[in-house]
Amino acid sequence: MSDSQLTLDDLCINTIRTLAMDAVQKANSGHPGAPMGLAPAAYVLWTKHLTHNPKNSAWPDRDRFVLSGGHGSSLLYSLLHLTGYGLTIEDLQNFRQWESKTPGHPEYGHTNGVEVTTGPLGQGIANAVGMALAERHMAATYNTDENTIVDHRTYVMCGDGDLMEGVSLEAISMAGHLGLGKLTCLYDDNEITIEGGTDIAFTEDVAARFEACGWNAIRIDGNSHTAIDAAITEAKSQDEKPTVILMRTTIAFGSPNKGGTSGAHGAPLGEEEIRLTKENLGWPYTEPFFVPEEAKAVFGACIPKGEAAEEEWQTRFNAYAKAHPKRTNQWVDGISGFLAFGWEKDIPTFTPEDGKIATRSASGKVLNAIAPNLPSLIGGSADLAPSNNTYMNCSHPLQNGAFDGRNIRFGVREHAMGAVMNGMFVHGGVRPFGATFLVFADYMRPAIRVASLMKLPIIYVFTHDSIAVGEDGPTHQPVEHVASLRSIPGLTVLRPGCASETADAWRLALKITDGPTALILSRQGLPVSDRSQAEGSVSSGAYILKDTKETPDAILIASGSEVHITLEAAEKLAEKGIQARVVSMPSWELFEKNLQNYKEWVLLPEVKTRVAVEAGISMGWDKYVGDKGAVISMEDFGASAPGNILLEKFGFTSDNIVEKTLALIETNKA
Amino acid sequence: MSDSQLTLDDLCINTIRTLAMDAVQKANSGHPGAPMGLAPAAYVLWTKHLTHNPKNSAWPDRDRFVLSGGHGSSLLYSLLHLTGYGLTIEDLQNFRQWESKTPGHPEYGHTNGVEVTTGPLGQGIANAVGMALAERHMAATYNTDENTIVDHRTYVMCGDGDLMEGVSLEAISMAGHLGLGKLTCLYDDNEITIEGGTDIAFTEDVAARFEACGWNAIRIDGNSHTAIDAAITEAKSQDEKPTVILMRTTIAFGSPNKGGTSGAHGAPLGEEEIRLTKENLGWPYTEPFFVPEEAKAVFGACIPKGEAAEEEWQTRFNAYAKAHPKRTNQWVDGISGFLAFGWEKDIPTFTPEDGKIATRSASGKVLNAIAPNLPSLIGGSADLAPSNNTYMNCSHPLQNGAFDGRNIRFGVREHAMGAVMNGMFVHGGVRPFGATFLVFADYMRPAIRVASLMKLPIIYVFTHDSIAVGEDGPTHQPVEHVASLRSIPGLTVLRPGCASETADAWRLALKITDGPTALILSRQGLPVSDRSQAEGSVSSGAYILKDTKETPDAILIASGSEVHITLEAAEKLAEKGIQARVVSMPSWELFEKNLQNYKEWVLLPEVKTRVAVEAGISMGWDKYVGDKGAVISMEDFGASAPGNILLEKFGFTSDNIVEKTLALIETNKA
Repeated sequence: MSDSQLTLDDLCINTIRTLAMDAVQKANSGHPGAPMGLAPAAYVLWTKHLTHNPKNSAWPDRDRFVLSGGHGSSLLYSLLHLTGYGLTIEDLQNFRQWESKTPGHPEYGHTNGVEVTTGPLGQGIANAVGMALAERHMAATYNTDENTIVDHRTYVMCGDGDLMEGVSLEAISMAGHLGLGKLTCLYDDNEITIEGGTDIAFTEDVAARFEACGWNAIRIDGNSHTAIDAAITEAKSQDEKPTVILMRTTIAFGSPNKGGTSGAHGAPLGEEEIRLTKENLGWPYTEPFFVPEEAKAVFGACIPKGEAAEEEWQTRFNAYAKAHPKRTNQWVDGISGFLAFGWEKDIPTFTPEDGKIATRSASGKVLNAIAPNLPSLIGGSADLAPSNNTYMNCSHPLQNGAFDGRNIRFGVREHAMGAVMNGMFVHGGVRPFGATFLVFADYMRPAIRVASLMKLPIIYVFTHDSIAVGEDGPTHQPVEHVASLRSIPGLTVLRPGCASETADAWRLALKITDGPTALILSRQGLPVSDRSQAEGSVSSGAYILKDTKETPDAILIASGSEVHITLEAAEKLAEKGIQARVVSMPSWELFEKNLQNYKEWVLLPEVKTRVAVEAGISMGWDKYVGDKGAVISMEDFGASAPGNILLEKFGFTSDNIVEKTLALIETNKA
Repeated sequence: MSDSQLTLDDLCINTIRTLAMDAVQKANSGHPGAPMGLAPAAYVLWTKHLTHNPKNSAWPDRDRFVLSGGHGSSLLYSLLHLTGYGLTIEDLQNFRQWESKTPGHPEYGHTNGVEVTTGPLGQGIANAVGMALAERHMAATYNTDENTIVDHRTYVMCGDGDLMEGVSLEAISMAGHLGLGKLTCLYDDNEITIEGGTDIAFTEDVAARFEACGWNAIRIDGNSHTAIDAAITEAKSQDEKPTVILMRTTIAFGSPNKGGTSGAHGAPLGEEEIRLTKENLGWPYTEPFFVPEEAKAVFGACIPKGEAAEEEWQTRFNAYAKAHPKRTNQWVDGISGFLAFGWEKDIPTFTPEDGKIATRSASGKVLNAIAPNLPSLIGGSADLAPSNNTYMNCSHPLQNGAFDGRNIRFGVREHAMGAVMNGMFVHGGVRPFGATFLVFADYMRPAIRVASLMKLPIIYVFTHDSIAVGEDGPTHQPVEHVASLRSIPGLTVLRPGCASETADAWRLALKITDGPTALILSRQGLPVSDRSQAEGSVSSGAYILKDTKETPDAILIASGSEVHITLEAAEKLAEKGIQARVVSMPSWELFEKNLQNYKEWVLLPEVKTRVAVEAGISMGWDKYVGDKGAVISMEDFGASAPGNILLEKFGFTSDNIVEKTLALIETNKA
């Protein structure tokens, strides 16, 4: 291209390109190709369409922007620097370094202006669907005929990798079904993957696929900022369907030797190629990380424009607050994450007299006691609501035309459910929960991980928690799932032992604000434990459910549906003159948060005969039972048969606990 | 409908329906709706189109049939009974009972004629894609212009749940890209999900979506056996594209009160409704599990037809074997899973003199040494081959028109990769491996679980195994993944500590025949351990890499990239007069298979100061370090910075190991 014809637009676009390539080069690590190819779209979107206020990244009615291909983070960081989010040139120069504001992938809560953590491909699209869904829900719930306080758009940029991942395909189908018209997806169709051209693996008609899912599709030249401008304008002009803009771009645009090749995807261009690229782009500045004054002025205009937009919204909001003080309070509670006053007041009390109750059923009762008093609570199931007991009777299904509904029909799309919830939460205003069978937690695991990393207080309702599922057999029986969820840093796993503990578990889950919680619930009925003599509580993670007068001969530890047979076993042991303490341990994570003396008060290091009982793999239990302890566990997959038969066959009976405990006492005497 | 007009076809179809509903009723558990709706398609396919020999379910050139919605298992069991696979009426009567041949979901290796374990939705479609892919690969590799020994079709039946799941969407895209024309998907479009009508969550144009992915789509009335017959005939008439047949069906067809409703999805119809249904279907027999003689005759004809087909194939095969004895041997090796003679012979030996080698790089060298000698080995990466080092230079990419290629381009579709590999393996003839970054093992976890349940010796190559990934940051750094993989029953996790252990790990992985293996490999270079003084081997799971003359003061245990710093630490401790044994522990699962005396010989119960070092969460390590041990581990997510800086910041240095060991020795003295 000839430098004499470069316009101001080109200069701004090349500013993004050069910052991105310089950052990757300095770090000697990163992905220059996508940012360089996406620079025109990023420039047009952020300076001409995105309604945002760089001075207040928390303005609730801002448009949302998601960079689904998080490996292109240097694009986002360049934009955050240029438009005034407080990211400095030094921050860009510290790209991918220890404790910098500019980590390898964008991290929510770490860098001002980053809406969501992205990197694991496909999830960003689902996050954006969640944001757009939250916006529609909040708009339907709060806007009035006179006052509109929620009205913004969501944009997501993605690459072919995102569109090959199943989670994005699930989310695209869901967005089309719901008619999320304020959602726009900008697809970086650069025809390049890590292994080569996209034609080696990805040859579907992407536009037709989106259209089949109820989206508008617009195909454009992604190197043309005027075409991009027109396409975004078109997307904004209608609100019935989400829009995908397929932008034919060039990876590492401008690089004479690496542009349009896989080589530019995930490695620095190299000093010499950067020199050649800048020359080719008509970029006259030799200094790296250089931002021309003219470009500064263009990007800088985002601040006054954003401030004016927020101010205009604030005026509308003030009028709304005056007209609807109660709804405003509710809106503020939702946005701030404050649990509405009285949210706990109707939670039922369960007692042994209630007979057997499945904890999934207790959970449904508790949820339905909380829901009317906590309007920000919203959620649903991956097509298992009747089994998960997650339908909130105080509301109706959320659907296109009924966006104020609080019961979401996620469809059989666990992974999207997880990532959509993440997007909804970071959007603000709602407290999402999502449900499926525990065994299918695996399907949504990548999204649970990112929720944990972002410290989002999402609630997962996982029912059908063990071999006691019964006839459905090993494909539907969790064995390793409680352990594998416990392994995720920051996720609290709560496996209540009865209806009463389930009520406490929900209370805790809603009070936890710094990470997600998984509630692990039984399919089968369980007696309600008599907790009248208990010392400690569910909130401590483990507590003494039944104690002995003297120092116990043995400590029996159990979680979930194994608590009641362990209580039974203690009684049988007492008949044989063996004094056993029973510890209910619904949560390892909460237990670990206690001081050492509480832990030792519960587990008594001097009592070496400790038996843990859990209908899952034993992995990790050694920490609590110690060198001389034992674990009654599942070490292989289950089988298909009625649940009570399986529990017996696999040793989850009070008699087996008695037998194993007696044997261990003998061994430990020797 | 009027019973006077019932044809023999109707009688046969109703035989399937009544067996299925009777089985569910007797079990008082199960899913009658889908089998009753799918009965016409099942009947037409199995009696008129499917080339199969009930007397030999292992005939390599049979057509494959997958019931992706495994909850409809009573359909498959009815077919297996009726067509003569040896499943008896008693087996049907024992549906979903302990140790029966008819578990809740079809289980591979458990019931004769079941091609693959299904139940976790969506995966069955991907399994079928794997089977169809294996067929094309074997055909391209072995057929000659004169002799065709591989030529069969794959049929998969699925429901809306399957088509909502991302894994199926990935696999559908892949099948379309590859032009797997011998694959036919029969979609049970009954418009009903568990939560209600499909219109509550799933309103996309399914046919158009398949078409966008390069499939033929045929819409028919799924209650009409003539329409089904015509559609399957059409699907078989062309081999360029896979075909989906969208069958508009009625869930629980024939049930006057539950047909077409969610109520018929997952619960028995009830005795009275069964009576009414049979009446409505014009079924004159009151006895449950009744098979009319006329129907027996029709289904029974599958046996002579199948035997004749196999015989005809055998004749062709004999001619082939005579013409191509060497290729025949190779084919037989592949089908039987026999590792070709000499497959190990070129595996390189690595020594400390080789300097630093990343285990992913060593893995690439070993793979490339094995591949030319083991022609059944086939695999690829989810678009990370250059990083996973999994490209086999002795072959070319597998593509439409080059199906004999052994390098599969899975695209960024980890979950489909996992399920496609399962399908390929159960098809027979190939030994598949698949690769991605360890952190993305989560994306394919549901398929790993089913591989473990089926005991399939799939090999997973997971590189970039820890925070040492570096700059990409926490979204790309595994922390909990080694632990969470270890939690899956039947999966062998192998994390070799250097290039030399990597060669052994590959040897082992290929020799393991009763379950999958995950190879966990480093991104960064690692010195090759001096194993000349080692006692024990990688195959024992843990062995003494460096011993002390006397009883050690401490035992240091490490896996993978932490082995070399642990060796360094032992040397530094020796300088301080502390004798430390170093145990390399690449695999817990293999270690657990040893006799107790080997385990105690390695870990010496009398030595209480045991320190484990692993750059992942500590969960489960307590079992090996004991009550007085310590674990140097990661208990939270990583960060973005160069890998060596992260290792230092998070304590994975020999100095930190020395310090922690000395401190523990002091504590244990007290």
